[in-house]
Amino acid sequence: MSGGFELQAWMQPRLARVEQALSGWVDASAPAGLGEAMRYAVLDGGKRLRPLLVLAAAEAVGADTSEAALRAACAIELIHAYSLVHDDMPCMDNDVLRRGKPTVHVQFGEAQALLAGDALQTLAFELLTPSFDRVPADIQARCVGLLARASGYWGMAGGQAVDLASVGQRLTEDQLRQMHRLKTGALLLCSVQLGAACGMAVPAACEQALVRFGQALGLAFQVVDDILDVTADSVTLGKTAGKDAAADKPTYVALMGLEAAQRHADELAQQALQALAETGLSDASLQPMRALAAMVVQRQH
Amino acid sequence: MSGGFELQAWMQPRLARVEQALSGWVDASAPAGLGEAMRYAVLDGGKRLRPLLVLAAAEAVGADTSEAALRAACAIELIHAYSLVHDDMPCMDNDVLRRGKPTVHVQFGEAQALLAGDALQTLAFELLTPSFDRVPADIQARCVGLLARASGYWGMAGGQAVDLASVGQRLTEDQLRQMHRLKTGALLLCSVQLGAACGMAVPAACEQALVRFGQALGLAFQVVDDILDVTADSVTLGKTAGKDAAADKPTYVALMGLEAAQRHADELAQQALQALAETGLSDASLQPMRALAAMVVQRQH
Repeated sequence: MSGGFELQAWMQPRLARVEQALSGWVDASAPAGLGEAMRYAVLDGGKRLRPLLVLAAAEAVGADTSEAALRAACAIELIHAYSLVHDDMPCMDNDVLRRGKPTVHVQFGEAQALLAGDALQTLAFELLTPSFDRVPADIQARCVGLLARASGYWGMAGGQAVDLASVGQRLTEDQLRQMHRLKTGALLLCSVQLGAACGMAVPAACEQALVRFGQALGLAFQVVDDILDVTADSVTLGKTAGKDAAADKPTYVALMGLEAAQRHADELAQQALQALAETGLSDASLQPMRALAAMVVQRQH
Repeated sequence: MSGGFELQAWMQPRLARVEQALSGWVDASAPAGLGEAMRYAVLDGGKRLRPLLVLAAAEAVGADTSEAALRAACAIELIHAYSLVHDDMPCMDNDVLRRGKPTVHVQFGEAQALLAGDALQTLAFELLTPSFDRVPADIQARCVGLLARASGYWGMAGGQAVDLASVGQRLTEDQLRQMHRLKTGALLLCSVQLGAACGMAVPAACEQALVRFGQALGLAFQVVDDILDVTADSVTLGKTAGKDAAADKPTYVALMGLEAAQRHADELAQQALQALAETGLSDASLQPMRALAAMVVQRQH
């Protein structure tokens, strides 16, 4: 799909590094079982799309990926994991299955799930700010700022609030896009930005093209998510299928129908690839991001 | 109480600056009512002890308090506010009254309270990382690291987990101290550290003495909290009185009795003052911290 580039061969060692780093950084010995609940939430599961995007973007701009980018990759996965833990709680989506396992509150109780989510968020910012000799202070500060803005009330958390408020509402395509731009798009875009932020002196035009890539990819991801909620079963998804429709949530499939939603996902993937071509980065260095974009659209879960 | 120093006169303009800054920084227009819930949680209430400690420590070490320290002061108050919102939720302490008002989940619903707490935490880290021309990157990175470590699983969140696990347990004084060192002490200590971190080239011996001050003050605060839970009424406290005893939680009063707890608080306050004297900072510059320590021990709510 990407001219001889083997995504699996690229992914495998990077996934292993991310898993190992997460396992090393989420401390099992934290007080009163909190560390265990956090590890349960974050280890042994997940596609790790966000960390892979961080590493792919960092490599593309020539950043060292041994420390700053690896920390950023793990930090954004911790934010993603915290949001899932809280989103699954009874007062939110009340879901019992996630990544093929009982959700954190089912396994550890609601209070511990609340705390584990809270502490996963905090740990993300802790990972980004090690002692200065490991990561330059300006990269630390830039990554914290990017991640906080993407996951806060004008990003992921705000999107969740819109999602809550939209149950049973009819949204226009613009409103639906706006909700997803916040709820899932902001963090996917941030993955790409974090990778770029680990590089030195990335030209503004390149950064802007990477932003367009991240935006299109983020939206494509959500459209595909809406499609899979309808077409896949719970075992394949590792989470409860059909729950958006059951909860009367607005989705791209509900708005435009299945076929048009699929076409829309393909268009967005094309936009993402076009944006990559405008980064001015070498074709070879863009291959991982290009292949990840294709994976997002073609995924079955 | 502190040789002619007027704490109220020192506090009043600083409290006004903190309130104004918080009101400016917690955006009412954030999506789907989330900003309003966050403002409800953080504005018009609270003693602002943590922000005052940040500013007092920053002034003592000669740091500029117009930007970095003001941001740190507000950031730690946001962390404190998020912890109260989540702590009050039905799955935790299930409390309905806070600062004399209905708690956030009573006012806005559980889902919005969960999100508001999450987003208040995120906003704390966003405040600490503005564009670089306002605050040097090394101060930004240092403050984020301090705040994340103090509020995460080896700090406040970990202390909450220990607190949850300790209901109905008999703890030794060592275990009780360890719980409070995490649950409330870490954030109070961090307030002092954040203030010092906004200064340039604070000598290590001074920093260490400030740490000892923050540790003693944090523990004194909790001992007094335990005392007030027994001796004050809900109207004075602005929160439900007697709830620790009702929930069969271990407290200093339960462990050592009311009089010995009061003596212990006084001893800790003495330790705090002794540590201040060892900072090597001028007596005049230490007056606000000294008076705040006295206020912590003498407070009625």
